[in-house]
This record gives sequence, structure tokens and C-alpha cells, in this order.
Amino acid sequence: MTYCIALKVREGLVFLADTRTNAGVDNVSRVKKLFTWQLEDRAITMMTAGNLGITQAVISELNEQLYRQQPGDTTIATAESMYYVAQVVGDVMRDVQARYGPGLAARGADSSASVILGGQRRGGTQRLFLVYPEGNFVEAVDDTPFFQIGEHKYGKPIIDRVMNVDTRLQDAVICALLSMDSTIRSNLSVGMPLDLAIQKVDSLTIDEERRIESDDESYRVFSETWSQQLRDAFAVMRNVEVLAEDQQSGGLFDHL
Amino acid sequence: MTYCIALKVREGLVFLADTRTNAGVDNVSRVKKLFTWQLEDRAITMMTAGNLGITQAVISELNEQLYRQQPGDTTIATAESMYYVAQVVGDVMRDVQARYGPGLAARGADSSASVILGGQRRGGTQRLFLVYPEGNFVEAVDDTPFFQIGEHKYGKPIIDRVMNVDTRLQDAVICALLSMDSTIRSNLSVGMPLDLAIQKVDSLTIDEERRIESDDESYRVFSETWSQQLRDAFAVMRNVEVLAEDQQSGGLFDHL
Repeated sequence: MTYCIALKVREGLVFLADTRTNAGVDNVSRVKKLFTWQLEDRAITMMTAGNLGITQAVISELNEQLYRQQPGDTTIATAESMYYVAQVVGDVMRDVQARYGPGLAARGADSSASVILGGQRRGGTQRLFLVYPEGNFVEAVDDTPFFQIGEHKYGKPIIDRVMNVDTRLQDAVICALLSMDSTIRSNLSVGMPLDLAIQKVDSLTIDEERRIESDDESYRVFSETWSQQLRDAFAVMRNVEVLAEDQQSGGLFDHL
Repeated sequence: MTYCIALKVREGLVFLADTRTNAGVDNVSRVKKLFTWQLEDRAITMMTAGNLGITQAVISELNEQLYRQQPGDTTIATAESMYYVAQVVGDVMRDVQARYGPGLAARGADSSASVILGGQRRGGTQRLFLVYPEGNFVEAVDDTPFFQIGEHKYGKPIIDRVMNVDTRLQDAVICALLSMDSTIRSNLSVGMPLDLAIQKVDSLTIDEERRIESDDESYRVFSETWSQQLRDAFAVMRNVEVLAEDQQSGGLFDHL
């Protein structure tokens, strides 16, 4: 599996992806799922999940379009807004699915795949999209300013509790890392190293792109600090007095 | 959907189930999924998830067996160990699946269902089992002393971090409630009220069985305290200095 999360706050976009891929539990590899494009008037980041053949084909096709670009072509470099960039990606997804989907389906294999896509073009605003296997897509809105693909459930509670569109960019990075950390601990199919990308609003560049290796000392301290914080928070819960003082039916722990 | 969690610590067993059931998003009901039996020489608790027709049939068949019991019959009341109790439940599951499974499959409906089953018989030890739709079952072991059924992913990270077989019984209750709280917040198909049962080791009785209603003041305070604790823990993460002091590649937040 995979876990990728993108957060869109007022100060910018944060993208975080793991790098584990597996075809069964005995065929585990490391593969990049986060891709950035620094283009003339725009910066774009994408993350992929699902059938690896499909997602790699989508990324390769997008790059082929850039490489062979002729005047007048609409590519992710020339599309006139981030909305049209998402449409370009969706169209490529649809083409790739049309090419390989039926063959995969005939063998009972799953061709589903999805792409998180975000960025900004000069003159436009930062936008974040989720492209489905069918090529259609949705956009992140202020009410729910994040997208997750892959193993999304383990890492959702922390996001639901601490993050919203007004969250500072630095906090959004922490939030993404905590969400990933919870997922890695609870699911073997998601694993280090991690790829992180950050695009500050209006910078029109990839402000940060780094790989966090499994032996990264910063990350180890970060992860252990969070574990300790959670244990401390848990210890506090023992002293929530009302639990033992429910007048109606006796405290929850009266019998313990 | 459903979320049920059972923890087995040295001091006893904790069972917690939600009560939401839905056939599509426009047909949501409240239904009990936690059942206890206080029998002559034993106390047993079960929780169910999956196809509601199947799980209700399993519970009803087990009760019919008790009601019609003749000398020599093997039921959950007479089975000579908790292992054989699990076998009785598994056999009933198999019978119910044989009766309804093919018809459901023919309509493309899912007959899958599972039962968490725990308890203790005089002269035996406390044991905890998970019964699969096929009627086979596995037992909780010290290395992984819990079972979850239904929407299990949202509530797993907290268990993975704070609970093991040596956890005190009261802490296990807190752990179950926190795991449920995270799930309810992140998934609409899991909802209040909750059913909680506790069996202390060697008591051979259901020491605690209560419904926690959605307007329960104790639970509200508990849930809000946890949210605040998590936000506080999150705030501490901002000060994990090593994040900004990674010598090799610069701090994670250098550019922010």
C-alpha cells in the first residue's frame, strides 16, 4: 500500500508520501511516489497511490508531454490555470486506464489509482486536487483542506483534531508527519523513507523537498517525542474525575 | 459499519461496542452489538460486526440452544472450556452462513460477519477469541492482547502506542474509550451510544455493563479532555528542537 497526505493551509501546501510498495507481503520495494515540477511560471507537486504500473505511466506520460511539447500544446506547463492542469492529469489518467484497465480487469487485477496534485501558477491561487481513476477530480476546500490517498484511516484522527485551514504552515508539516507516523506504526505496508515537499503560497517554487531516511535522527526524536507526549496525555486521562463521579449510575471505574 | 474493541489484560477483559448500523447512508439505525451471558459457572461477553441479519441470527441461535437445552447438549453454558465455547459459536456461525450465505452471494450481497467472544469458566482462565465468518477462530495472545472488528483502523494507533498485556484494567478501559472516540470522530458510520462490559479476572461475573448515551456528561468531559490533551501534546511538538537543527540538510522548517 501507500500513504500520502497533502494539507492546504493559508500559508501554503504540504505534501508527504511514504515510499513503500508491495505486491503481496513477500514482494516489498521502495519507490518514489512524490514528484515535483519547477516550471517557468509555476510549481507543481503530485503524489500517487494505487496500481504502480498505472501511476508510473501517468507520471511518465506527463513528462513525455513536456519533453515533446510543441507550440500550442496543452501540458501541465502550459495549461492556463491549475484547474486545467488537473484536467490534463485527469485526461492522462483516463488514457492510461483505457489502455491497461480492461486487461487488468480481465485478470481480476485492480487498476485503480489516484493522484493528489497541488501547486500554483503565476497570477493564480494555490490549489489542491484529487484525481480519481476515472480522470475526474475534486478540489480541497477550506472546510476540509486536506486529501489523503492509500492507507488513510490510521492517520486521519490526528488531522481531524488539530488541523484546519488557518493552521500555520509549520504546524501543517508537523501534522502531516504525525499522521504519517501513526500510519507507519499501525500498518506494515506503509514505510520509511518519506518524501516531503512544501510550497509556500505565492512563492511559485518548491520551497522544500527532502527525503527523510529511516535512520534520520531528527525524525527519530520527533517520533519518540510524540509517543512520550501521547503516553503523558494518556496518564492525564486517569485523573478525569468525572469518570468516577457519575451520579446517575456510579463511576465508570467504581468496580475496578 | 460498526466498531468493537476488546482488550485482554492480566486483570481482566474490557469490551466496548458502538451501536450504529447502516444500510447505505440514508438508512441508519441504532442496534445493540454487545451481549453478555451470566451463567452458572461462567460469564461470557460477545460483540458482533458485519451483516446484521447474520450476526443477529448467530446470537439468537445461541440463545435458542440455551432455551431448549437438554442434558448432554453442548451449548455456551455447558461447553467444557472457553475454547469449546468458541467452537460452539463458530459452529453456529457456519450453520447460519450455510443457510443464508449462498442466497446473499447470488444477489451480490456480503454475508461476512465476525464475533469477538471472551469470558471465563470456573476452573479455567480468561480467554478472548475472534470468530470468523467461516466459523474458525483465533485467540488473543500476550503479544497482541486485543481484537478489533468493523472500522478498526482509526482507533488502532492509540492502542498500538499505549496498551499491552500488563496495562492496568482501568487503563484498558480508558484505552478502549479513546480508541472508540477517535473512530467516532473520523467515521460517521460509527456512533454513540456505546456499550461497555468489563469482566475482572476470576470474578466469573460481568462486573460492569453499561450503556454510555450520547448526552453522557462523563463521556463528554472525557472526550473533550482528550482533545485538549492532544492539542497540548501537538503544541509541544513545535519545540522539538532537533527538527530545526539537522546538521546534514538544514532544519525541516528552515524555509518556513
